[in-house]
Amino acid sequence: MDAIGFATGNTNPGTFPTEAFAEAARRAVSDLTVGLNTYPGDLGHEGLRMLMARREFDREGVAVDPGHMLVTNGSMQAIMLATDALRDGRDDIVVMEEYCYVGTIRAYRESGIEMVGVPLDERGMRMDALADTLNRLADDGRKPRFIYTLATYQNPTGAVLPTDRRLRMIELAREHDIPIVEDNCYGDVHYDGDKPPALYALDDDPRQIYLCSLSKIFAPGVRLGYLVARPPMLERIVAKRMDAGPNTLASAVTHEYLRDRLWEHVEMANVALRAKRDAMVDGLRRHLGNECAVTNPPGGLFVWVRLPDDVDPGAFRAVGNRNGVDVAHGSDFHVRGDAGPFIRLAFGFPGLDEIEEGCARLGRSLRETRDSAS
Amino acid sequence: MDAIGFATGNTNPGTFPTEAFAEAARRAVSDLTVGLNTYPGDLGHEGLRMLMARREFDREGVAVDPGHMLVTNGSMQAIMLATDALRDGRDDIVVMEEYCYVGTIRAYRESGIEMVGVPLDERGMRMDALADTLNRLADDGRKPRFIYTLATYQNPTGAVLPTDRRLRMIELAREHDIPIVEDNCYGDVHYDGDKPPALYALDDDPRQIYLCSLSKIFAPGVRLGYLVARPPMLERIVAKRMDAGPNTLASAVTHEYLRDRLWEHVEMANVALRAKRDAMVDGLRRHLGNECAVTNPPGGLFVWVRLPDDVDPGAFRAVGNRNGVDVAHGSDFHVRGDAGPFIRLAFGFPGLDEIEEGCARLGRSLRETRDSAS
Repeated sequence: MDAIGFATGNTNPGTFPTEAFAEAARRAVSDLTVGLNTYPGDLGHEGLRMLMARREFDREGVAVDPGHMLVTNGSMQAIMLATDALRDGRDDIVVMEEYCYVGTIRAYRESGIEMVGVPLDERGMRMDALADTLNRLADDGRKPRFIYTLATYQNPTGAVLPTDRRLRMIELAREHDIPIVEDNCYGDVHYDGDKPPALYALDDDPRQIYLCSLSKIFAPGVRLGYLVARPPMLERIVAKRMDAGPNTLASAVTHEYLRDRLWEHVEMANVALRAKRDAMVDGLRRHLGNECAVTNPPGGLFVWVRLPDDVDPGAFRAVGNRNGVDVAHGSDFHVRGDAGPFIRLAFGFPGLDEIEEGCARLGRSLRETRDSAS
Repeated sequence: MDAIGFATGNTNPGTFPTEAFAEAARRAVSDLTVGLNTYPGDLGHEGLRMLMARREFDREGVAVDPGHMLVTNGSMQAIMLATDALRDGRDDIVVMEEYCYVGTIRAYRESGIEMVGVPLDERGMRMDALADTLNRLADDGRKPRFIYTLATYQNPTGAVLPTDRRLRMIELAREHDIPIVEDNCYGDVHYDGDKPPALYALDDDPRQIYLCSLSKIFAPGVRLGYLVARPPMLERIVAKRMDAGPNTLASAVTHEYLRDRLWEHVEMANVALRAKRDAMVDGLRRHLGNECAVTNPPGGLFVWVRLPDDVDPGAFRAVGNRNGVDVAHGSDFHVRGDAGPFIRLAFGFPGLDEIEEGCARLGRSLRETRDSAS
């Protein structure tokens, strides 16, 4: 078997509806002469915005105005637009989960924004630690520009922030007069357990910014995300958009395919992903043994593994690469790049047989890493 | 007839190959399961980069390495990536044509970059004025980060910078140790006359950055542009890319359609656009009379009109809107927003009959503007 990649959060090609999507592409383009020959405007494809507003309504029971939504080039552009609208340009601080999405960390670092990490436990960001962090910053006279949180199926840990913590985060943000940017890109990649409401459904702060994506429930190659915000925050964000608008072709084709079967597609994709998660968790527990702590995430695309203290994740990863399996190093997901005992494994793309074989290779790699260190 | 829009640089729906493009979309997606379910990387779709490298080779006779090219979300993202790579973050200056693309101006203004405009004549940026500007800035101890130029079919003026001026610009940039960012997004929208070589074909500065687009020779709705730069400038630019890569779907579909008929498509589109340009110039000369100076651009999508001194462009535009025709106000294209006696008219999208009727409405609007002012 070729090299097996567990490093990147790709989606499942096995459930991708290639032929039906190809047919949708043909139909959408047939009706798109004017759309393709004109600029899309700042908000983007209206049909897709209406469909995504319905997605939010169905999940959260809260009406989202499609006129308060921007289609973006993946959720990364939404993250950057929110940041550009909220930052001041100097002495900018963002408070966020200590372990977080590597794209966000890289973007903040490159932009010169100081990241202040808050520790997590198995239920997400710790609210005692958030309170301490905000108080400490306030004592130093430093006000963060915003809190960034990936509250549901957190990347990389898979944690889901319970409702009581969400309400506490909203309360703390209000006390300190700080807006919350909620990144819910995994929100519909759901396997089991309850789903707490999104923060935007619990909060009435007019500055709240909500981000979501089609990269996780559909496909990253369509490069479609979106952002929801109310005026005047909406106008502040639109003023930062300088790309002449999002992709009309990708929006129209994706809308054409999903408009009559959004949840049908999500359900179908999640059934297959749940089987992959089960195979991954089972394979890791069998092959890595009891010394590694393996999460069993109720949603999302990642298993987060704590290695034994005597195993260096970098060395383990290098041995894994030699054995034909790639993982993501936990330190990439840390706001300060701290070396913790963690690796992250993505199970969306590889097939079930690759997951089993990849876990076996990881088990072999763990033994070899120890042998070479002893 | 409904309202006629001459304000925005859209392309010609009349020559857009909707059915063949729809078929290409179906074919491309049929073969794109892995591409859609994975992230595109920083450079983007390899086939499209190879096709665009061939485009550059065919036009300029200079080999472009597809590995030195980034596919971008329209050329606006390329403009911003180049800017982010070249700017320092404080006290940034860009030297550029005094009248320029409104998207670039808005982006620089929003980013806090100081724009220093260089006057143009009918052959583009004046090199005596550029020399004076660079010397004056040097005397003040202020070094611009780069020169931004739209040298071919300049937007909004339609001017083409002659080869001797291009060589002089390169010489001045070298003397002052300043890189040039060349935006050639209209380079293939060509009607008549010679085409001087692109600056990148005349210059061997390793810091040069070249931008181009598919928005003008194909369709803005595919949102595809690209940027060419050599290492280490390439790496500086890639480090600023934070959007998780360009659009795989749009890239693959556009590549599938254009790969065997790029120049055939360009030729066909240009024949129709040339007829629209002729109709626009002829209609304006007949309906606006001899008092307005009307350009006859050898390429690009715009006619630049100098109104008589007693006619305020803002008032003229408002009267035009009441008469069902929209134009772009020249001051939008000025780096300082200065009110000059100019309007810009885009002829790509409207049909020939709309162009004739729109010009008649402009003639009526000119008379009414004068009547109401006297």
